Amino acid sequence: MPETKVKKSEDFNEWYNEIVELADLCDKRYPIKGMNIWKPYGWKLMNNVDRLIRDEMQNTNHQEVCFPLLIPESFFKKEEEHIEGFGKEVFWVTHAGLNQLEERWLLRPTSETAMYPIFSLWIRSHTDLPLKTFQIVNTFRYETKQTRAFIRVREIHFFEAHTCHVDFLDAERQIKEDKEIADRLLTKLCLPYVFSKRPEWDKFAGAFYTISIDVLMPSGRTLQIGSIHQYRDNFSKPYEISYETEKGDHAFVHQTTYGMSERLLGALIGVHGDNKGLIMPPEVAPLQVVIIPIIFKGKEHTVLQECKTLQAKLIHEGIRSHVDDREITPGNKYYDWELKGVPLRIEIGPKDVEKNELTIARRDTTKKKSISLKDAEKAIQTELQSLEKTLYENAEKLLNENIHNVKMIEEAKEKIGIIALPWCGNKDCALKIENVLEGNTLGEPIENAECRDPCPVCGGPAKTWMRYAKSY
Amino acid sequence: MPETKVKKSEDFNEWYNEIVELADLCDKRYPIKGMNIWKPYGWKLMNNVDRLIRDEMQNTNHQEVCFPLLIPESFFKKEEEHIEGFGKEVFWVTHAGLNQLEERWLLRPTSETAMYPIFSLWIRSHTDLPLKTFQIVNTFRYETKQTRAFIRVREIHFFEAHTCHVDFLDAERQIKEDKEIADRLLTKLCLPYVFSKRPEWDKFAGAFYTISIDVLMPSGRTLQIGSIHQYRDNFSKPYEISYETEKGDHAFVHQTTYGMSERLLGALIGVHGDNKGLIMPPEVAPLQVVIIPIIFKGKEHTVLQECKTLQAKLIHEGIRSHVDDREITPGNKYYDWELKGVPLRIEIGPKDVEKNELTIARRDTTKKKSISLKDAEKAIQTELQSLEKTLYENAEKLLNENIHNVKMIEEAKEKIGIIALPWCGNKDCALKIENVLEGNTLGEPIENAECRDPCPVCGGPAKTWMRYAKSY
Repeated sequence: MPETKVKKSEDFNEWYNEIVELADLCDKRYPIKGMNIWKPYGWKLMNNVDRLIRDEMQNTNHQEVCFPLLIPESFFKKEEEHIEGFGKEVFWVTHAGLNQLEERWLLRPTSETAMYPIFSLWIRSHTDLPLKTFQIVNTFRYETKQTRAFIRVREIHFFEAHTCHVDFLDAERQIKEDKEIADRLLTKLCLPYVFSKRPEWDKFAGAFYTISIDVLMPSGRTLQIGSIHQYRDNFSKPYEISYETEKGDHAFVHQTTYGMSERLLGALIGVHGDNKGLIMPPEVAPLQVVIIPIIFKGKEHTVLQECKTLQAKLIHEGIRSHVDDREITPGNKYYDWELKGVPLRIEIGPKDVEKNELTIARRDTTKKKSISLKDAEKAIQTELQSLEKTLYENAEKLLNENIHNVKMIEEAKEKIGIIALPWCGNKDCALKIENVLEGNTLGEPIENAECRDPCPVCGGPAKTWMRYAKSY
Repeated sequence: MPETKVKKSEDFNEWYNEIVELADLCDKRYPIKGMNIWKPYGWKLMNNVDRLIRDEMQNTNHQEVCFPLLIPESFFKKEEEHIEGFGKEVFWVTHAGLNQLEERWLLRPTSETAMYPIFSLWIRSHTDLPLKTFQIVNTFRYETKQTRAFIRVREIHFFEAHTCHVDFLDAERQIKEDKEIADRLLTKLCLPYVFSKRPEWDKFAGAFYTISIDVLMPSGRTLQIGSIHQYRDNFSKPYEISYETEKGDHAFVHQTTYGMSERLLGALIGVHGDNKGLIMPPEVAPLQVVIIPIIFKGKEHTVLQECKTLQAKLIHEGIRSHVDDREITPGNKYYDWELKGVPLRIEIGPKDVEKNELTIARRDTTKKKSISLKDAEKAIQTELQSLEKTLYENAEKLLNENIHNVKMIEEAKEKIGIIALPWCGNKDCALKIENVLEGNTLGEPIENAECRDPCPVCGGPAKTWMRYAKSY
């Protein structure tokens, strides 16, 4: 079978670019840097991921809303830290038709400053809380760094949940729920991850604290695919989101947000793909099973009939499947669908029909086996589950082999991936390590963070572990 | 039951505004004119309409794509008529961060000029045709007229299908398919409509011809809820979308587009609602059935259990249902759900449980009846179908009673709604009638347009009928 020009193990970044192109996920020829065209296969994949997110949101009583894209400059400027964090990264609308606008509007980079002035109208009483909302929208950031499909773009397909609570503790409960949602979702995508609490100087603009969700890519670099923020009352004060308590007092709400983006696709592609193309986790595969009739003259009808009967059974079981009856060789069909990462390929030929059998080929292991046509849909379901498990285990192995707790900088320099070192809590010490490792801080582990070793820079007592990595 | 302050029959426009507000479909307090916030109920409704559109697109082999929001000015300017039509109605992005852009970008008002330069890369050969794509996205128009929720807004939730064909005839076949799609969709929304071929001076910028899809609102005004355009090769020439024919020649593609928007919601609300609130066509109702337990002390458990058992059966049948077990009076619940337009309300009380019965109340007729609990889901399904039929018939009656073919201007002046008069084909004659009727041309009927009467303005022989209406 043909393979990519660039091998994944040799030059991951080039391999990634090639695979995105070959699998026809997006078209990068649009003339604005970092604004790509979603092609049908890529958009289906993204929609399947969105569907999982919507299911999670519905099961946790979040309500879907959709706020305007444009934010008046005055709304944006109410929270000082936030404007400082984003001010240089936004696009400005200044004219409408032939007129200059009285006030400039920005394209949302994220929706805090669009939503929160309105939340202050929606929330009056403790009975309005918790308010749990989310939206899936296009957001915009003026990236000046090199762009990369799904990973660093300027128009971003973005999920953002925004919640308001009576107090800090209830907001903390929301963060616990968010972590559970992330875990369920990423398990379905076969993507093991780490949660890290970002250091003070690297948290989200305006947040009380930020938990980043990072995936390790096979290049050894991490990809942040989501973040969860505890805002406390940092936004509710400037945006005046207060409520009447049960006792009749007034209090500011405590807020959280949880964001993820099309980077989830970047992670899927990078972690699971191989030199033959994508490998799609069954939960989000646009197509889970492709059925290829192996046709010889005179037997076409029976074989094709058998393929269609099987497809009908699969559809009945809720398995996304397709019969590829194009007039090209089976080999060319194999090539196409391997590139697209369809988890299972079924081959049915005249001999299979005679023996009441079919052949299953797995995309991940490339192993083939014959199974009985009777109850084939059950066997296929089982095989999809087994493939999902394998994808997860392979990714977990990659992560576990490349996450290191070490005590000395010299040791750290020899490692690739996520490297944790004891940390005294001093910013300068962390920055010095960043510098030596040519990476950046990822944050503290949110569990089992205790560390009794000395800080490798200043020798002072460590408060915690600090993770470092090279990141996308 | 409480009713709206303003009655639908007395002041339709005010009633519309009130109902949109009361039913909590959107929040109009966002500080940019014509940019409203989709609230959860309104967004669910919109998503249900989108789902029907996506189903239609899938069944007709259209592929969903998603193009960037921003369009470089140079792309936009390639087609002269188009820029003239839209130039004054677009928002311009001129700055990114602290920098002025080298070239201005506009927010898409529609995506021809974003897509077509890329189509010229996608299409090489006749085997790439037809190309049938669509997207559902946010678009932007700088409306200077008075805005109205869902009907005239500046950020528009928009569906746009774009297709390319080998020749004019194949593009005409696409337009036939589009009309069939519109018919199936609008039937599901219980919205009878008229197709009109717009006059030359009122067609879409750059189109060869435009078919508008109009619904008659109870105010007597028409609402254009969609349009289908035949572009011929008007765009493919400037955007250089050509292909190699079977014979090896090069030819320009012929193109069509089909667009609809959130105006579909405006039509739903306006046509079906009454003084108690919305009435949702079952196909798109966020909730099709609400079940209200009528609880008396001591019997709570049995009644609630019965409600939940019924809900489980309804969900199994694919019927969107909800048990309202809030601790407020049944009367208040009735009020809430009537406002939201839930098609059917089920009441179950202790006596119903004893008699193995339940009560169904229809939102449209307000009629109640008792049915047996056994096989209730079948009876409910039937009742939903019957309600759908009634909604359609009522709307059809409204349309039929307010569409008039008349021969003389004096006669026309006495009519309300859609008025057709003989037309000689002369623009001045049509404009004169527009002026007298204080309305605008809707266009020629696309079927049975022959007319043998003289033009009521110049007396010359009429070529066709021309429709006039006051429009939103």
